[in-house]
Amino acid sequence: MLNPVLVIERKRDGHALTSDEIRFLISGYAKGEIPDYQMSAWAMAVYLQGMNAEEIAVLTSAMIATGDRLNPVGDKPRVDKHSTGGLGDKVSLILAPLLACADVHVPMISGRGLGITGGTLDKLEAIPGYRTNLDEAAIEQQLREVGCVITGASDRIVPADKKLYALRDVTATVPSVALITASILSKKMAESLTGLILDVKFGSGAFMQTETEARILAESLVSTGNLLGLPTSALLSDMTQPLGKMVGNANEVVESRETLKGGGPADVRILTLELSARLLVDIRASLDIDSARQSLEQILDSGRAFEQFERMVTAQGGRLDAMPKLGKSHDLTAKASGFLQSIDGQRLGHAVIALGGGRKFVGQAIDPSVGLEMLVRVGDKIQTGQPLVRVFSGEKSDRASAMRLLDDAFTVGDTALPPVLLFQPWSK
Amino acid sequence: MLNPVLVIERKRDGHALTSDEIRFLISGYAKGEIPDYQMSAWAMAVYLQGMNAEEIAVLTSAMIATGDRLNPVGDKPRVDKHSTGGLGDKVSLILAPLLACADVHVPMISGRGLGITGGTLDKLEAIPGYRTNLDEAAIEQQLREVGCVITGASDRIVPADKKLYALRDVTATVPSVALITASILSKKMAESLTGLILDVKFGSGAFMQTETEARILAESLVSTGNLLGLPTSALLSDMTQPLGKMVGNANEVVESRETLKGGGPADVRILTLELSARLLVDIRASLDIDSARQSLEQILDSGRAFEQFERMVTAQGGRLDAMPKLGKSHDLTAKASGFLQSIDGQRLGHAVIALGGGRKFVGQAIDPSVGLEMLVRVGDKIQTGQPLVRVFSGEKSDRASAMRLLDDAFTVGDTALPPVLLFQPWSK
Repeated sequence: MLNPVLVIERKRDGHALTSDEIRFLISGYAKGEIPDYQMSAWAMAVYLQGMNAEEIAVLTSAMIATGDRLNPVGDKPRVDKHSTGGLGDKVSLILAPLLACADVHVPMISGRGLGITGGTLDKLEAIPGYRTNLDEAAIEQQLREVGCVITGASDRIVPADKKLYALRDVTATVPSVALITASILSKKMAESLTGLILDVKFGSGAFMQTETEARILAESLVSTGNLLGLPTSALLSDMTQPLGKMVGNANEVVESRETLKGGGPADVRILTLELSARLLVDIRASLDIDSARQSLEQILDSGRAFEQFERMVTAQGGRLDAMPKLGKSHDLTAKASGFLQSIDGQRLGHAVIALGGGRKFVGQAIDPSVGLEMLVRVGDKIQTGQPLVRVFSGEKSDRASAMRLLDDAFTVGDTALPPVLLFQPWSK
Repeated sequence: MLNPVLVIERKRDGHALTSDEIRFLISGYAKGEIPDYQMSAWAMAVYLQGMNAEEIAVLTSAMIATGDRLNPVGDKPRVDKHSTGGLGDKVSLILAPLLACADVHVPMISGRGLGITGGTLDKLEAIPGYRTNLDEAAIEQQLREVGCVITGASDRIVPADKKLYALRDVTATVPSVALITASILSKKMAESLTGLILDVKFGSGAFMQTETEARILAESLVSTGNLLGLPTSALLSDMTQPLGKMVGNANEVVESRETLKGGGPADVRILTLELSARLLVDIRASLDIDSARQSLEQILDSGRAFEQFERMVTAQGGRLDAMPKLGKSHDLTAKASGFLQSIDGQRLGHAVIALGGGRKFVGQAIDPSVGLEMLVRVGDKIQTGQPLVRVFSGEKSDRASAMRLLDDAFTVGDTALPPVLLFQPWSK
């Protein structure tokens, strides 16, 4: 019988934990045999002393083992994408139906927004009737009949993660690369995937502020996934500004529908195609990235991806014809002329929260009709009085606070800027 | 209103906490407003990131403020000594009555043994009837009437320490210099002292194994005490071997009585005199260390210290005439000739626990009649067959285990050794 105090002590002193020690802690914690106060001390020791690749892989496996895994349906490849979160990131809504048209299953278990970045489930719930609480049998049935699903995690998927994440949130131990890696991969691997791609985002509109942090996390995610036998790759993508024009919930569904029909903003289309194409190459469903991208472009432009999206939404009870109207709009205009130097994503995110489109606390209700439409991009030439952002507000919005935040979010200056690189494949 | 997560985060990131932040955490924890799982994450962050002298001083004050302080009685100086714990350390039993004869008050709040080193309260409870649960009024009365008292801490003295220490014990956060310093000093300062000396012990028979660790802790204790306005000094003392000959409970009372009458082992007498004399100089009750030592020697040799001890024991209900007999004795003999190179204090301590004279868990009952009598000292010339240690055992003793542990505790070799330095005054 292992002693939790001695395991904490070994991590405190910078040693690598054995597989037995890690499994003992995680399974004991999931069963309620190890108390929160020991896990939080351990999490702080992990935060400050780190874990090596093997420890992270064992931690991930141990977390998966605390719950169920989804059953594969038939013998189609099963793929998924995970994003570390960024403003306006609606890629999941497009990528899942798009890839389902490329003859793979997409069993996407997704999450809600907390903090400045939104959540895929919140966006989909802007569609009246859309159910995000499918059980494992319903997920299997929908994969068989439709080929893709986007739903929330049941309590039976990686319960250790649910418990540990809630604890990390209140003990300042969230931003540990080891713990983030195990949290993300355990939930994705419980989907019984054959391929996974990570969209690791950085910049003012992302969870990670710097490219260096994003690179370290991408390295950890890719090496751990592959160490555990799951073909895993990553893109680093820039969140200097929101992805696409729309930031919110219903308005992001609108933009997703446009992209699914072959239109939409260039950055949304390009990033979605790149992530999807790389997945098809990784699982050897395509020979090379260019042919994968080409066939996916055809799926978007033919309208097949949109039809697939409609099938998925209908299967999950959603009524696209009943989408809420966007809120009343007001434009914020430029006070000076010049080039747009930067956009403060933190302020944009807090503005969306002030409008009622994001959460200050777990469980808070969201108004799907509010949000932002970005009218300019970093590097654009700006004239005084030119609209910068359109604000959609609702009855409960604190529009004054939102406008104040937005007013400080745009920096205009004299310097002409080089174009922003949207993404780069991750490599060591 | 401060946010505990942000305070933990700041310590996690290596920042010095503000006084407000420290007081907020400690008072909130004592009141039950901050949960164990946040305090343990914070304690691990403190363990790994440390605290500066000012933070430790504020932490100490904040802990004192969670409970009561003893009231001074009249205007006599009030002094105390704290030892970090070592095998055979019976100095408190001698020092308190000795100093009370030198016209100072000694309001000594002491603790129990856990781990390999014994506790002063356990030793005194070997005296039938001796009460260690005096309340604050009884302590005041006894100081007024007798001049010294040795009792346990009530729940009203530094309750934050009691709670935090129990938490640290199960989260691998005990050996933090900052947390040890605040724990020791808060309890001593709650005695409303005018002078304090620390006996910081190192070596195989002590809590700290190395002189370096002891030096760091002594530095922290002395600087924090003085920063808080309490004249505080320290000795570093060597625990390469037990202090005196007796290790246990009743047998340590026997040895203390001998020392109180002017006899006893040289090391016990010398260390007790040194600690006491330094205290008298620190509070300016003596002009210099030599005259202080001389007058204290006279108090021991005249029998006055022993009479004072009898008065204290009687006041606390103890009956020295009813002391238990020591257990049945067996000698362990040397298997080889040579010089005694070293004694493994950890093994000695575990042997005492196996005999029933120490604790494996909080609250475990102790047999006062068991223990060890050391018959040799490091550096002694040893002949095969010569007795090394006398073992006193009781009915519930696991004597076989104790003998096995002791058998491995003595290392005899060919090298003649220089004498061991008993103590050194601490200085930077």
